Amino acid sequence: QSSSDSRQNSSEPSKPKRVMVIGGDGYCGWATALHLSNKGYEVAIVDSLIRRLFDQQLGLDSLTPIASIHNRLRCWRSVTGKTIELYIGDICDFEFLSETFKSFEPDAVVHFGEQRSAPYSMIDRNRAVFTQHNNVIGTLNVLFAIKEFRDQCHLVKLGTMGEYGTPNIDIEEGYITITHNGRTDTLPFPKQASSFYHLSKTRGYLDIRDTVQCVELAIANPAQPGEFRVFNQFTEQFSVNELASLVTKAGEKLGLDVKTISVPNPRVEAEEHYYNAKHTKLIELGLEPHLLSDSLLDSLLNFAIKFKDRVDTKQIMPSVSWKKIGVKPKTLAA
Amino acid sequence: QSSSDSRQNSSEPSKPKRVMVIGGDGYCGWATALHLSNKGYEVAIVDSLIRRLFDQQLGLDSLTPIASIHNRLRCWRSVTGKTIELYIGDICDFEFLSETFKSFEPDAVVHFGEQRSAPYSMIDRNRAVFTQHNNVIGTLNVLFAIKEFRDQCHLVKLGTMGEYGTPNIDIEEGYITITHNGRTDTLPFPKQASSFYHLSKTRGYLDIRDTVQCVELAIANPAQPGEFRVFNQFTEQFSVNELASLVTKAGEKLGLDVKTISVPNPRVEAEEHYYNAKHTKLIELGLEPHLLSDSLLDSLLNFAIKFKDRVDTKQIMPSVSWKKIGVKPKTLAA
Ligand SMILES: NC(=O)c1ccc[n+]([C@@H]2O[C@H](COP(=O)([O-])OP(=O)(O)OC[C@H]3O[C@@H](n4cnc5c(N)ncnc54)[C@H](O)[C@@H]3O)[C@@H](O)[C@H]2O)c1
Ligand SMILES: NC(=O)c1ccc[n+]([C@@H]2O[C@H](COP(=O)([O-])OP(=O)(O)OC[C@H]3O[C@@H](n4cnc5c(N)ncnc54)[C@H](O)[C@@H]3O)[C@@H](O)[C@H]2O)c1
Repeated sequence: QSSSDSRQNSSEPSKPKRVMVIGGDGYCGWATALHLSNKGYEVAIVDSLIRRLFDQQLGLDSLTPIASIHNRLRCWRSVTGKTIELYIGDICDFEFLSETFKSFEPDAVVHFGEQRSAPYSMIDRNRAVFTQHNNVIGTLNVLFAIKEFRDQCHLVKLGTMGEYGTPNIDIEEGYITITHNGRTDTLPFPKQASSFYHLSKTRGYLDIRDTVQCVELAIANPAQPGEFRVFNQFTEQFSVNELASLVTKAGEKLGLDVKTISVPNPRVEAEEHYYNAKHTKLIELGLEPHLLSDSLLDSLLNFAIKFKDRVDTKQIMPSVSWKKIGVKPKTLAA
Repeated sequence: QSSSDSRQNSSEPSKPKRVMVIGGDGYCGWATALHLSNKGYEVAIVDSLIRRLFDQQLGLDSLTPIASIHNRLRCWRSVTGKTIELYIGDICDFEFLSETFKSFEPDAVVHFGEQRSAPYSMIDRNRAVFTQHNNVIGTLNVLFAIKEFRDQCHLVKLGTMGEYGTPNIDIEEGYITITHNGRTDTLPFPKQASSFYHLSKTRGYLDIRDTVQCVELAIANPAQPGEFRVFNQFTEQFSVNELASLVTKAGEKLGLDVKTISVPNPRVEAEEHYYNAKHTKLIELGLEPHLLSDSLLDSLLNFAIKFKDRVDTKQIMPSVSWKKIGVKPKTLAA
C-alpha cells in the first residue's frame, strides 16, 4: 500500500518516471531499457524470450554473442548500480500482463514486443498466423491493461514504415490532407502491406543510438491524454545499391576485398520506385541524428572481423520467397 | 478420382459452378446460398454455427423464428429438389477447412463467416480479442486454403464500409487517386476504424435481395487472376432521422401509433457528418437495385406485427457503450 502511494506521485517532476519496456530482451528494447535506466528512469523489462526460441528453431545465432537476459541485467547492476526489473511472460496472456501492470505500475509503456521479421512471417501458414495473432492480440491486451490499471499511462508503440509500402507520393507522418472533388479532409496515410508482417523493403535508416533517443523524447514529451501521434522514425534514406557502395568503400579502407553481387528479389515490390518519407516531427522535439558516417561503418565492420568465426554463410542469401509461402509447416533440417 | 475429374471441368460454361458459402447459416449467407442454389450453382455451406451460440449466451433471439440449419436444408430440398452440402466447423481450424476444400473443390468462395456485430466486439476484452482473432485468422486460413487446394478459385469477401469511417471527402470504391506535392498515385482508401469490429454508424443501405444479386454478379464476372477488386455494396443513403420518418409514415398507413425518440449515441463518431460514398461498379456489372419503397417497409412492419409476441423490449435500447469497454468478462444475468 505505501509503495503504491509513493508511486501515485511518480509523475511529479522530482520523481523518476516508471517505464515498462515490452520486448526489452530484443534488439531495440534492450538498448532502450539501458538508455532509460542510465537517464534515471525506473525501468522494467517484459519479454517472453520467444525471439531466442525462434533463433534456436531456425538454427540461427547472432553475429555478436548475446548473454542471457538474467546475466545482462546482473552485469548492468554491477556496472551502474541500477536495477532493471524483469517480468518473463507472454503479453498475449492477459493474466500475466495484468499482474505486471499491478506490480510495476508504469507511467509509460514502450511496446517493442512483436514478431518483427518479415521473412519469418512468410515462411509458412503457421508463422503467418502466429505473427498476426501475436502482434495484434498482444497490442490489444496492452491497450486494455492500460485502460484498466494505469489509465494515465503513455504508450509508445513501435510500428514499421513498411506499412506505407512505396507509394509514388511523399509519405507524411501518419496523416495526409487530401482534397478530392472539392472537399478536404486529413486522413490516416493509406496503407499498402506487402507481407504478413506488413513490411516492405524499407528505405529509411536509423542509428540505434537515435532509436533510444527518439523513444526517450517521446516519453519526455508525452502526447495529450487521448491524443494519437505518429512519428516517422528514421534519419536517412538509402537505396540498397547506395548502401553497398558505402560498405565497399569502408571495407577497402580497412584493407578488405569487398564484392557486391545482385540476387533476385525474394519480395514482391518493384525494384525501382519513388520513396520520399517525411521525418520532421522528432527533429522538432529535439532529435540530434547520428548519420551513417565512415566511423560507424568502420566500427560495424570491425565487429564483423572480430566475430568472423561466428559468421554462418548459409544464412546470408535470402531463403524465404514471398511467392512460395504455403500451408505446410516448413521443417528445417540441420 | 472420377468425381475429381468431372469437377476439374466445372469451369466449362455448361457445368454449374461450385460455390462454397462460408457463414452460410447467417443472415446474408443463407439468403445467398438459396439464391445461388436456385440459379443452378452447386452450393456448399460452411459454418461453425457460433452465431447461434452468441445469441444463446446473450439471451437473444431473432424476431422471426429461425429453424435449425439441418431443417432449413431439408426443407429446401423438399421444395426445390436441390441439395446444398453442409460442412459444420470453424474456419480458424485449418485441418477442418482443408478437408472441406478437398471434399467440395469450390470454383468460388463467398466469405461471410465473421463475427459481424460491432456492439458485440465492444462488450469486453474477451469479445474484442475473439473478434480480431476469429475474423483475421479465419480469412488468412481461407487465403492459404485457396492457394494450396484450388488456386484458380475466385474469392468474394464481404467487408464493411464502416472501415472508411465518416471522412469529410467522398468515399471511393477501394482506391483513391491523390495528388500531393506535385506527384500522383492511386492508393487504398484510408481507413478509420471506430470499433474493434471496425464498424461505424453506416449510412449506406442495401436490400437483402440486392446483397444476393451483388454476390452473384461478382461470381458470374470474376476478377482476373491476381486482381483485387473492391465494390461499395449499397444502393441508398439515409440518415437515421430520415429512416425514422419513413418508418413513421409507413406505420401510420398501417394504423400504428409510431413515436420517434432520440437516445444518446453509444458510439464515438460525430452525430452530424458528411457522408457520400460511391457505388457505381456493381451497377456497371448490371445490378438492378430494389429501393426502400413503401411496399418493403409495409412488408417488414407486417412481419413485426405477426411476431410481436416475440419482441423482447429489453433488447431494443443500446446496452453496449463504446467508452465503457473494459477487461473484465461481462457476465449477463437473466
Ligand atoms: N530493428 C529494427 O530496425 C526495426 C525497424 C522498424 C521497426 N521495428 C519495430 O520495433 C519492434 C522491435 O523490433 P526488434 O528489432 O527490437 O525485434 P526483436 O525481435 O529483437 O525484439 C522483440 C522482442 O519482443 C519479444 N516478444 C515478441 N512477442 C512477445 C510477446 N507476445 N510477449 C512478450 N514478448 C514478446 C521477443 O522475445 C523479443 O525479445 C518491432 O515492432 C519492430 O517491428 C524495428
Ligand atoms: N448484415 C449486414 O447488413 C451486413 C452489412 C455489412 C457487412 N456485412 C458483412 O457480411 C458478413 C456476414 O454478415 P451477416 O449479417 O450475415 O452475419 P451473421 O452473424 O448473420 O452470419 C455470419 C455467420 O458466420 C458464421 N461464422 C462466424 N465465424 C465463423 C468461423 N470462424 N467459422 C465458421 N463460421 C463462422 C456464424 O456462425 C454465422 O452463421 C460479415 O462479414 C459482415 O461484416 C453484413
